[in-house]
Amino acid sequence: MADTGTQAAPAPFTSADYADRMARAARTAADAGLAGLIVMPGPDLAWLTGYLPTATTERLTMLVLAPDREPGMLVPVLEQGDARATAGAGAYRTTGWKDGEDPYAAAAALLRPDGRYGISDSSWAMHLLGLQRALPGTAYAALSEALPMLRAVKDEPELTRLAAAGAAADAAYRDVLTVRFAGRRESEVAADLAALLLAHGHSQVDFTVVGSGPNGADPHHEAGERVIVDGDMVVLDFGGLKHGYGSDTTRTVHVGEPTAEEQRVHDIVREAQQAAFEAVRPGVACEEVDRVARAVITEAGYGEYFIHRTGHGIGVTTHEPPYLVAGERLPLVPGMCFSIEPGIYLPGRFGVRIEDIVVCTEDGGRRLNATPHGMALVE
Amino acid sequence: MADTGTQAAPAPFTSADYADRMARAARTAADAGLAGLIVMPGPDLAWLTGYLPTATTERLTMLVLAPDREPGMLVPVLEQGDARATAGAGAYRTTGWKDGEDPYAAAAALLRPDGRYGISDSSWAMHLLGLQRALPGTAYAALSEALPMLRAVKDEPELTRLAAAGAAADAAYRDVLTVRFAGRRESEVAADLAALLLAHGHSQVDFTVVGSGPNGADPHHEAGERVIVDGDMVVLDFGGLKHGYGSDTTRTVHVGEPTAEEQRVHDIVREAQQAAFEAVRPGVACEEVDRVARAVITEAGYGEYFIHRTGHGIGVTTHEPPYLVAGERLPLVPGMCFSIEPGIYLPGRFGVRIEDIVVCTEDGGRRLNATPHGMALVE
Repeated sequence: MADTGTQAAPAPFTSADYADRMARAARTAADAGLAGLIVMPGPDLAWLTGYLPTATTERLTMLVLAPDREPGMLVPVLEQGDARATAGAGAYRTTGWKDGEDPYAAAAALLRPDGRYGISDSSWAMHLLGLQRALPGTAYAALSEALPMLRAVKDEPELTRLAAAGAAADAAYRDVLTVRFAGRRESEVAADLAALLLAHGHSQVDFTVVGSGPNGADPHHEAGERVIVDGDMVVLDFGGLKHGYGSDTTRTVHVGEPTAEEQRVHDIVREAQQAAFEAVRPGVACEEVDRVARAVITEAGYGEYFIHRTGHGIGVTTHEPPYLVAGERLPLVPGMCFSIEPGIYLPGRFGVRIEDIVVCTEDGGRRLNATPHGMALVE
Repeated sequence: MADTGTQAAPAPFTSADYADRMARAARTAADAGLAGLIVMPGPDLAWLTGYLPTATTERLTMLVLAPDREPGMLVPVLEQGDARATAGAGAYRTTGWKDGEDPYAAAAALLRPDGRYGISDSSWAMHLLGLQRALPGTAYAALSEALPMLRAVKDEPELTRLAAAGAAADAAYRDVLTVRFAGRRESEVAADLAALLLAHGHSQVDFTVVGSGPNGADPHHEAGERVIVDGDMVVLDFGGLKHGYGSDTTRTVHVGEPTAEEQRVHDIVREAQQAAFEAVRPGVACEEVDRVARAVITEAGYGEYFIHRTGHGIGVTTHEPPYLVAGERLPLVPGMCFSIEPGIYLPGRFGVRIEDIVVCTEDGGRRLNATPHGMALVE
């Protein structure tokens, strides 16, 4: 088996790449009628500048992008050295503020007092309130709502990274099928999965769900102390970052032979996943992909047990636009990259979910996960 | 040496403890003229309820506390099982919302349309904007500004945990003095420190700063690839969580013999730390402790090189009120727990910082770190 951990790393993004992203973001904001964008530590900042402070704290760090000015980053003076030492630092100017000064007064100097700004989703409410107080004439919109397309369409260097992350997750899955399940705790199998993701080149493991038997019926169950036994369905949902981009894949395996009902539920989820995948093409609304997956499960009589949306975008973070959910009319565009992950959850009994990362291309969907969808039998 | 990792864990907080915290918080909010508190995932939620979702995501989780009603927690239906399985779950009622529904409409049903609410600092801006849009008549204040005292005064079970975390950090420091510094990378010493914190009972390591030579002059430098050499000053600043409460301590050591200037700068910082410690007593303003530390360093001619506040509160998170910073007039109260950490940073040359966690008692300060302040010489 190829060791996906030893492939050459892609060329790092350069200051010019970050400058280009910031310029495009500022233009997109202007086209949307915004005075600019305010970006605090989180995935948007990492994507736009390559900079992330070592910790997100109460001290304000804030990038301002506007079409008519150089990108400016307000940072605690303590962290100015770090903010000037990143690959993208050539593309923005930093201004430091000191403990004891009012950071919102410093921020106000970078903003139009009557401007309407997009602000990164995970910016702290404390900071937004500070800006609203310093500049009562400003208005704000959450970035993922105001500009859902900002990071949604991936370019080739990004798709290369996402494909590498997906291939590494696939390799981890193939390897985990050979470990012992029966008689071991979920947390032990989860540790195996985490080690495998790292062995296959992930720099960071974000989640390793091992939901055995009734725990699989809770889609957000992580891994606990339950001992896996013969006869269990086991949901495996795992991912993290490789070269800065995310993986996220789910397969549902079985310890020993499944019952007819278990096989049937697995078949329905598999069919729903395939139908949703086949619905992917440019121009189709996000909600339509959700509707297609849901229709398969509903027609099979399990609609009330599919209790989450069908998918979410993925890039430098695991959950981002586009969201494949009822009510989301955003059309698919080539380069969008997202999960398709229908599931059925029978409370107190078991759950099944099958998830691939899929790219929208001109010709339809392309999967970034290639392991079989059939129910693997483990020991 | 006592193995601080094997001491019995304190009794866990109970549903009654959480109910009491929530009731006090609601009363405090009412006393401050607020309609209630809105708390999203982060340290306030963990402290009030014992619940933290496994990941903080775009899906809204929100606790509402008001004096006239039962605590209510709005959670994604996917996570409702987790929210109902915590130690504090008996003390709040959960309401689930489903993908595709509008969580802010659901939230609005829990709020007064004209209410002024405190909102946890690190709540996502996206969610605050959602609330402001759903209920335009509401107003909001950041929790740490509106109720800085909410978590600032620790009770005995909390102080016991903070003392245990401090003792474990001290044990890690004593052990790290015996490892090799010269010829090894900062990142290697940092890994030693992290392993020692875990060995001494920390459940989580949050930071292990190893700032050698010129890197020590950047207070927020973490640990890098620089190889430590004979003659380096090395700032060691490390901490994490033990039994859910934080440690955070700094000592500055030297590889081989220091120069006269290095010794002098270290002595000044030590004197500043001691003077600030002696200034601690009930009723003294936070800014006064900062002023005392700063005066020692300024009088010695290094004022411009002390580029951060003197300290921050610590509890279930590492940075929280009270902040020992110019302009903070909040008076010290017995039970407050905070760092005292003056430093001098000479750009391109070296830095010195000495930090203890200190509790304010009726009789003055009590340190939770007990290792010597003198400059330890390492090899």
